[in-house]
Amino acid sequence: MLKIDGIAASPGVAIASAFRLEDPDFTVNRREVLDPEAELIRLDEALAKSEKELEAIKERTLQELGEKKAEIFESHLLILSDPELLTPVRDKISTEKICAEYALNETAQEFISMFENMKSDYLKERAADMRDVTKRVLIHLLELTYVNPTDIDQEVVVIAEDLTPSDTAQLNRKYVKGFATNIGGRTSHSAIMARSLEIPAVVGTKEVMSQVKSGDLIIVDGLDGTVIINPTPDLVEEYKAKREQHLQKIEEWKKLREVPTISTDGVHVELAANIGTPNDVTGVLENGGEGVGLYRTEFLYMGRTELPSEEVQFNSYKTVLEKMDGKPVVVRTLDIGGDKELSYLEMPKEMNPFLGFRAVRLCLERQDIFRTQLRALLRASVYGNLRIMFPMIATLDEFRQAKALLLEEKEKLVSEGVSVSDTIQLGIMVEIPSTAVLADQFAKEVDFFSIGTNDLIQYTMAADRMNERVSYLYQPYNPSILRLVKMVIDAAHKEGRWVGMCGEMAGDATAIPLLLGLGLDEFSMSATSILPARSQISKLSKGDMENLAAQALQMSTAQEVVQLVRNINA
Amino acid sequence: MLKIDGIAASPGVAIASAFRLEDPDFTVNRREVLDPEAELIRLDEALAKSEKELEAIKERTLQELGEKKAEIFESHLLILSDPELLTPVRDKISTEKICAEYALNETAQEFISMFENMKSDYLKERAADMRDVTKRVLIHLLELTYVNPTDIDQEVVVIAEDLTPSDTAQLNRKYVKGFATNIGGRTSHSAIMARSLEIPAVVGTKEVMSQVKSGDLIIVDGLDGTVIINPTPDLVEEYKAKREQHLQKIEEWKKLREVPTISTDGVHVELAANIGTPNDVTGVLENGGEGVGLYRTEFLYMGRTELPSEEVQFNSYKTVLEKMDGKPVVVRTLDIGGDKELSYLEMPKEMNPFLGFRAVRLCLERQDIFRTQLRALLRASVYGNLRIMFPMIATLDEFRQAKALLLEEKEKLVSEGVSVSDTIQLGIMVEIPSTAVLADQFAKEVDFFSIGTNDLIQYTMAADRMNERVSYLYQPYNPSILRLVKMVIDAAHKEGRWVGMCGEMAGDATAIPLLLGLGLDEFSMSATSILPARSQISKLSKGDMENLAAQALQMSTAQEVVQLVRNINA
Repeated sequence: MLKIDGIAASPGVAIASAFRLEDPDFTVNRREVLDPEAELIRLDEALAKSEKELEAIKERTLQELGEKKAEIFESHLLILSDPELLTPVRDKISTEKICAEYALNETAQEFISMFENMKSDYLKERAADMRDVTKRVLIHLLELTYVNPTDIDQEVVVIAEDLTPSDTAQLNRKYVKGFATNIGGRTSHSAIMARSLEIPAVVGTKEVMSQVKSGDLIIVDGLDGTVIINPTPDLVEEYKAKREQHLQKIEEWKKLREVPTISTDGVHVELAANIGTPNDVTGVLENGGEGVGLYRTEFLYMGRTELPSEEVQFNSYKTVLEKMDGKPVVVRTLDIGGDKELSYLEMPKEMNPFLGFRAVRLCLERQDIFRTQLRALLRASVYGNLRIMFPMIATLDEFRQAKALLLEEKEKLVSEGVSVSDTIQLGIMVEIPSTAVLADQFAKEVDFFSIGTNDLIQYTMAADRMNERVSYLYQPYNPSILRLVKMVIDAAHKEGRWVGMCGEMAGDATAIPLLLGLGLDEFSMSATSILPARSQISKLSKGDMENLAAQALQMSTAQEVVQLVRNINA
Repeated sequence: MLKIDGIAASPGVAIASAFRLEDPDFTVNRREVLDPEAELIRLDEALAKSEKELEAIKERTLQELGEKKAEIFESHLLILSDPELLTPVRDKISTEKICAEYALNETAQEFISMFENMKSDYLKERAADMRDVTKRVLIHLLELTYVNPTDIDQEVVVIAEDLTPSDTAQLNRKYVKGFATNIGGRTSHSAIMARSLEIPAVVGTKEVMSQVKSGDLIIVDGLDGTVIINPTPDLVEEYKAKREQHLQKIEEWKKLREVPTISTDGVHVELAANIGTPNDVTGVLENGGEGVGLYRTEFLYMGRTELPSEEVQFNSYKTVLEKMDGKPVVVRTLDIGGDKELSYLEMPKEMNPFLGFRAVRLCLERQDIFRTQLRALLRASVYGNLRIMFPMIATLDEFRQAKALLLEEKEKLVSEGVSVSDTIQLGIMVEIPSTAVLADQFAKEVDFFSIGTNDLIQYTMAADRMNERVSYLYQPYNPSILRLVKMVIDAAHKEGRWVGMCGEMAGDATAIPLLLGLGLDEFSMSATSILPARSQISKLSKGDMENLAAQALQMSTAQEVVQLVRNINA
């Protein structure tokens, strides 16, 4: 048994066999064989295994995702029995007396490059299909242990070096009970995604990949941030109880789903959710979200080969607005650059990308990109309660420029006869210290603020939140951060504006009492954090929290603030 | 004639021939020759030219820097006539019928690798000497136009892609009348160095290297940031007049050298200088500096193969304190990391080095490095008026830890019988927004603040000041920056502490009226900015400037602030 500490990235407890997700080594060597007949049998066995797998995947996909999605596996099966591919492979094995993997790989690569060089998109897709199928058969021939994340069809805990957002998105909630990674932090994309998929996760363990073999029994405790490898039976029972307890708590929270969020002294605050795609709206509603406080539009731009068209964007925005059925939806315009790159958008290499050409800075220069998004948003505005906000605003000039572009596009659309809502609220992210300090000036011109604490903290403390060597400086409870939050809220309220928060801090149990006391109007968080937050706030008095916050503002260190909040909670 | 705009990096006007400083292409190809005799003559000619050069450099070095420094060129001359090297070179040319450069290079490389593989440091140095000499001879054989910066012995304007601090340090003020570079900004190291060497400079021209040939007549206007290539005779006269005017102004300023800096309503402020080495003190005193407001100790750690010993550091600190003769000297402890690397100190590659593991963050972990510096400072403290400050302080914890280490080392020294001053002031750089916002808490524990605007601005605006694409966000006059400066000054004065500023902003003519109005106590700048600043402040009323600053704090953009100050100045 071994216990590894990591960062609690997504709550819950998972107990299942380990499944190592890693790129296998597909290197194929030319190896001569003495017995080509045995090699032909090896090939047939690998083909049979692959066929069985594909049948199963096809069946599952058919049931879960429908006929259309299952078709792709039908074509994979066809390739697997295609004599045009297999006859030359078998010939090579017999005449050249070489191993099956080499014969298969060489023949398949010829087809793949032939297909790739064809003009037809259909044939190009055939190349991709053939590559997938070849890999699948090679896995058996080379006895590799790799399976695609989508192929996982038994209950497992996924163990990986890191997970990309798309890896995480592909995980099937039904089978993947939890995951643990070597790298990443609480605010890494995989952690955020895990919370929205409600999969318990521990990240940043540094050593889980070197300690775990596939098949090991694993406990992932996403509540406390620990991973236990091959636990004793007693421990398994203990964690089963912990899991049960957590699930019960979740049941209790679910009763709060339709209840507004009201403090003991009768003050209502809005609990909203952060989303990345229209699919996330289901989770928002299931968790009793009163709105979408942050719709990150970056995902629309990712995993593509070119910019998304106005139409593609319009449809996404419209879907979210319609599904939210009149509840407010705050859409953040494109926040690309920094650590988020687009393969099809050439960006200069920067020495400090977090302090670089990103988000609205890029959009004000690349007006083609920005105007398309603004038009799509304006067109969608009539389908719900749309609010637009610009990210990374550092100066009033930038806000004025962005607003002017929006108004220009609105005017154009109206003159084209397109209907556009007249009640779109226009706000900004407050994530740069200059904007927080100058919030009183901004409040005269914006409709609302949304405080983005992830970036605000890293700029205010001058510490890259992805850099482990300075992670001790990522201090949400540092009194300087609380003071900036207060400046923003006070300035907004003076002008009759509302203030939301869409950074990780908004859903943090230690921060919530302070934020309530500081007067935050809207808390936007992972959908799964909403009910716990509602439960917490419904037990707090806003008046008391105002006193708490006033004390916190006069403290000198983050530790003192944490101690203060703990004393109240105790 | 061609006029190129750049960034005015160091004031003054230079008119001289262009001198392109660039790494030449030392590629040597094996070329067979028909007439080896002619090749031997070519070799002898190149050797003779090299000898003549070296004699001249040796002579100049002897006169300017003394016998010790001249010795190195004596050993170069010995290599140039060493038969052990030249006999095999001549043999190769004759027998193999190959060109002189190939024969020389091949033979020399053999010696170099032989020397390099030897254990003795003396012989390793011989390898470096031989490499230098070989390059010098190859320059003639390959007809390259390269000369070392130290070799420049006629009046020129240096044109380069960029200049490293060590390139700049090597420039001989007597001959290098100015420089212009393709890249860099007003706060790049080469610009800062140019101002301390009082060499007119224009940086960030982007195209000066592609437009200028060596020998072109060049005007470098470091007052307005323009470079003129092959100007008309009329224009040369015009700029000669401009240069004259500037030099006269300098003469006037010099009369202010012994005068204290007092506003028209009788308020004294301290004008101090930023320095990098003990040699800079001369310039501070010549320019009437009332102290050293920032002694950057990084240069002590640069251009070496290992950490500087306590003794080396002690001597530098002692020299500066003694030369300043009781005037205050604020020494900043090591600020390495970020864009400043040390070759002998392995540092992890960081994605955002400006938000990374640097300065006091590194020193608190590498206590061996930090304690050595603190001991050297404490030992030097009895030789003058020492003040110590820590860079990149983001939290009170960090300050408390750094102070505790200083007190530990002090106690150790005292118990060893070493005398240490009891009146050392201990302060911090305020260059991280969190520290500015929390200045009231810091003011209870520090003796003084020094605002480092270069970093404070880049963190507050979340814009890398080295990144041209976001350089529009480097806004010293943004009201948010002025507000942070005010927070720091008010907090300090409430606790009876003083506040200095050691960023570029302290010497900026537009900022000075605002800073005077905000109540800044000490302005630390390039030595050459002190007299112009004194002249400016002596014509301003502090009371009026308080009103001006109060207005500026209520403005919404940097442009409005600049306009406000311009109206007062007009």
